[in-house]
Amino acid sequence: MLALITDYGYKDVYAGILKIVAKEVCKDAEIIDVTHGIEPFNVLEGAVATLVAAKHLPEGSTLVAVVDPGVGSEREAVAARVGGRFLIGPNNGLLWLAAQELGLEKAVRIEKKLVRYSSHTFHGRDLFVPAGAFLECGGGLEELGPETSLTPLPFELYAKLGDKRVETVAVYVDRFGNVMTWAKEAPFELGELVRVNGRPARFVRTFSEVKPGELAVYINSFGYLEVAQYMGDASKSLGLRPGDPVVVEA
Amino acid sequence: MLALITDYGYKDVYAGILKIVAKEVCKDAEIIDVTHGIEPFNVLEGAVATLVAAKHLPEGSTLVAVVDPGVGSEREAVAARVGGRFLIGPNNGLLWLAAQELGLEKAVRIEKKLVRYSSHTFHGRDLFVPAGAFLECGGGLEELGPETSLTPLPFELYAKLGDKRVETVAVYVDRFGNVMTWAKEAPFELGELVRVNGRPARFVRTFSEVKPGELAVYINSFGYLEVAQYMGDASKSLGLRPGDPVVVEA
Amino acid sequence: MLALITDYGYKDVYAGILKIVAKEVCKDAEIIDVTHGIEPFNVLEGAVATLVAAKHLPEGSTLVAVVDPGVGSEREAVAARVGGRFLIGPNNGLLWLAAQELGLEKAVRIEKKLVRYSSHTFHGRDLFVPAGAFLECGGGLEELGPETSLTPLPFELYAKLGDKRVETVAVYVDRFGNVMTWAKEAPFELGELVRVNGRPARFVRTFSEVKPGELAVYINSFGYLEVAQYMGDASKSLGLRPGDPVVVEA
Repeated sequence: MLALITDYGYKDVYAGILKIVAKEVCKDAEIIDVTHGIEPFNVLEGAVATLVAAKHLPEGSTLVAVVDPGVGSEREAVAARVGGRFLIGPNNGLLWLAAQELGLEKAVRIEKKLVRYSSHTFHGRDLFVPAGAFLECGGGLEELGPETSLTPLPFELYAKLGDKRVETVAVYVDRFGNVMTWAKEAPFELGELVRVNGRPARFVRTFSEVKPGELAVYINSFGYLEVAQYMGDASKSLGLRPGDPVVVEA
Repeated sequence: MLALITDYGYKDVYAGILKIVAKEVCKDAEIIDVTHGIEPFNVLEGAVATLVAAKHLPEGSTLVAVVDPGVGSEREAVAARVGGRFLIGPNNGLLWLAAQELGLEKAVRIEKKLVRYSSHTFHGRDLFVPAGAFLECGGGLEELGPETSLTPLPFELYAKLGDKRVETVAVYVDRFGNVMTWAKEAPFELGELVRVNGRPARFVRTFSEVKPGELAVYINSFGYLEVAQYMGDASKSLGLRPGDPVVVEA
Repeated sequence: MLALITDYGYKDVYAGILKIVAKEVCKDAEIIDVTHGIEPFNVLEGAVATLVAAKHLPEGSTLVAVVDPGVGSEREAVAARVGGRFLIGPNNGLLWLAAQELGLEKAVRIEKKLVRYSSHTFHGRDLFVPAGAFLECGGGLEELGPETSLTPLPFELYAKLGDKRVETVAVYVDRFGNVMTWAKEAPFELGELVRVNGRPARFVRTFSEVKPGELAVYINSFGYLEVAQYMGDASKSLGLRPGDPVVVEA
């Protein structure tokens, strides 16, 4: 299974060309579009999506992730083996969270040329997907290039638990405006009234337990503390973007 | 063929994870993304999309539909056999139109646990897609859980034909702003001038028969009366949303 | 490989139904969604996407392109063999650029009825995709209908090179607001200051070589001169849309 995450969007041919090129390198690759809708150049959102998707992928599968504001610059192209899966992408922090959580086994700089394409602006086609398809078809990680180290994500992610208080950081805003944070625990009772950055909210199991327009705080389906506004957009209401601090307290 | 309809959108990893999980339960499932772009929580739009897609699906195939404002609440997860296909989704009316038109054979409440995932907010991953993949790989409907009944769609859909007059309801607005109604007949002549909620329009075979900016009324490719504005957005021009009444008269 | 390009968008079931119907005609077709996000009715954008995707497709594959403001009118449905691939779509210029560059071998008008569907507004389902799937499964081009000629694209595309000057036309605006032009050469030095329609810019290898907010001019990954604004939207900043004139000069 060759999974794809990019910020290429759905308007253009870029994501489609990735799939054509993957088939050129590995005819029988089973390609899964995870998403091409990461916010352009938002490496933090991309890293969180990569983490979450990688944890769902079976061992032996491959995930190519491309959110790459520095394409064409000196940053490396990298392929890594983590927890029995392969992750490929720019070495700008995008693979960091997944590698930390699943366990980095080895990372190499991609130098092997696998397709006829070459450009300064479309390394997804020229480097990342060909390398991913190569691994998917049984190629060896070591054949791609020399060993390297993974670049950390350039954001300070934290989750400090206190007495009825969580200090953490927003890491992802989804289509519904739900704000996922980096905290995995919540020292609150179900139904308890809390405040999120000062705004009243309720700690619940699911956002449908509050009234339309109210803020809900809950552990989301990936195990992280999340803030949602039922039938609304918590991100807009709270003015929260990936990277912003979030304090939840009772 | 395992077809998917959701309101998960294209920004996030949710739709991608559905496909990873489907493959986990049924390795050879052939997955078709019908759409993940249903308006969030719009059960009527989702029910119409489910109806239309189900009618195109071959017998023996499976359609998982997820538009689920009550996720985590008491509403059931349901799987149904209708017209030789399987439909899976929340029991909130989403499957109702397809079941009515294709013929409901049996519905069961999904209780069988097929994957390791469990949450209050992502039943697509935890329940619906695993059940669909189970059926797609030959599992029996009865193995999923006890028999239940399908919940009707909580909207009054009607189409009253009079002399040169149709009273009906808007059921779907597409990307182009075209408004599909619930009427399947139109007592008008081709080329005849009509009024749609009082606004001048023309009854034609296709929207390209009117001038840019004009309103066109025609039988759409699914057999329903539809209002479009050539090179415009009929939904905005007429202020029509799914569920709103539509009167067409000559 | 059966590749799809349309302006159907991602909100509706239309693109999904294409895939269901393709499987009905050619069970083992390997379908690649290139994009369904072409701007509605923008034949120039669609023609450029078709050109670029076709050049990446392997010989023997099939590309169905649908951007069809005249659906239901007298324009033909056409299938063509170009450079060893098959292209299918409305005969409105959409296939013109690809056919010119890859080499038109033969074009036929699609008359063969392959599915039970028939409408005036959804020829993607009724004609184009069934024809593409028929060819993908080994059907003969000549069996689809009588020979015809391809309609040219109704736009004057040009690229005039002068001394430190390019006069050309914008042909595509992507998700990032990058403006691709029809020029394939650039008489400038790397790092040279230029003007794009009078606005200061720099000729570089990649957009990440300019500062956020600055305009960059470079040869894009498909070999065409492109204008981008790093971390911005060149299309908006320059007021450029497909079809507009672009002058770059040092």
